[in-house]
Amino acid sequence: MSIEAVTEAADGPRSKRPAILAAAMERFGEVGYEAIKWSEVADRVGIGQTALYHYFESKAHCLLTIMRLALRNSDEAFRKAVEDTDSSLAALRAAVRAAYALTPLEVQQNRILQANISILANERSSKREENERGLCRELVAKIERNWSELLEQGMAGGEFAKQDPLLMARSLLGLIVSVWRWYRPDGPLTLETIAAFVENSCVLMATGDKPRE
Amino acid sequence: MSIEAVTEAADGPRSKRPAILAAAMERFGEVGYEAIKWSEVADRVGIGQTALYHYFESKAHCLLTIMRLALRNSDEAFRKAVEDTDSSLAALRAAVRAAYALTPLEVQQNRILQANISILANERSSKREENERGLCRELVAKIERNWSELLEQGMAGGEFAKQDPLLMARSLLGLIVSVWRWYRPDGPLTLETIAAFVENSCVLMATGDKPRE
Repeated sequence: MSIEAVTEAADGPRSKRPAILAAAMERFGEVGYEAIKWSEVADRVGIGQTALYHYFESKAHCLLTIMRLALRNSDEAFRKAVEDTDSSLAALRAAVRAAYALTPLEVQQNRILQANISILANERSSKREENERGLCRELVAKIERNWSELLEQGMAGGEFAKQDPLLMARSLLGLIVSVWRWYRPDGPLTLETIAAFVENSCVLMATGDKPRE
Repeated sequence: MSIEAVTEAADGPRSKRPAILAAAMERFGEVGYEAIKWSEVADRVGIGQTALYHYFESKAHCLLTIMRLALRNSDEAFRKAVEDTDSSLAALRAAVRAAYALTPLEVQQNRILQANISILANERSSKREENERGLCRELVAKIERNWSELLEQGMAGGEFAKQDPLLMARSLLGLIVSVWRWYRPDGPLTLETIAAFVENSCVLMATGDKPRE
């Protein structure tokens, strides 16, 4: 499995960081973040406790890193999707599609991000955790800005209905990410079907200026 | 403050249960569920530890009870909102409006529900916690069914576009509850403004059968 989704530029080829993050994501998925013991992740990766704690001082530190990388991936995927589109509507469609064009590991990463997003609300007492939390919050604001700006352009150009762009951005994002709560790879709906449905819904919301009676 | 939102038929007039739940909700809101010590809730209510543990054996037991009552309130509000409506569209509008016609305590309860919803995914080792978790899961399924059935009726009657009703129900609910992630009573948008926006969005999604190019 490619672990690009949890790899950073600073990770050298011998770094165990990406492998630890991938193993932790597996365990969080299997039994939930709350239930796992941080130290058991070392066994799964095949490293000792000292090595584990060299990379991550706690379960929360690891979780916040997984979340930051998920947000980084979303931000990058958005920017890549909208470049070279020739209208705001095409950009909106491409951005929604990109939100679902994911590897199984990235799907799992998004589930973990959404399931634990409330951890971003309160200050952490550990410095390294608080640092990751701050970066996550900046990325959340950046992603909301990406979508707001896209919507504002479409409103200015007459493609989208005039609305509060931030409210519309948060609503589209809320709809898009709500899928990670219930989607299962072995469930009855494919990600492709869901993506087409959500894309259509987002277009209706952005373009429809008044309810039809 | 009315604490009807966390009161049950079985609570007699001398029961401390509703007051404990209300105090816990305040603390969860102030510092987050993860950070609070369960025993400190007793001080806030002005009762001893023994009384506290008589009602709730753990922080998770209390959280799951708050969540179950939030889901109970949503289910009841939905059914009350849609009765006596004369079309599926009117029922949809009323159901969305009802989701935001809340007291400040209910708003806080919904924030807690949404912030901690992932706790419902994994089995609890405590019997009382597991019992509450099971009831929560039943209510989630019931609420999804409420919305699916409303949508199916509207599709059958030609008021709504033909779509997968469960996918549409989950999407509308995902959009509706996403508000609890970012809404703050002292923020720039009123709940009234947000409710009108989301109502309009839900109508567009349910009635719009094809994207407009």
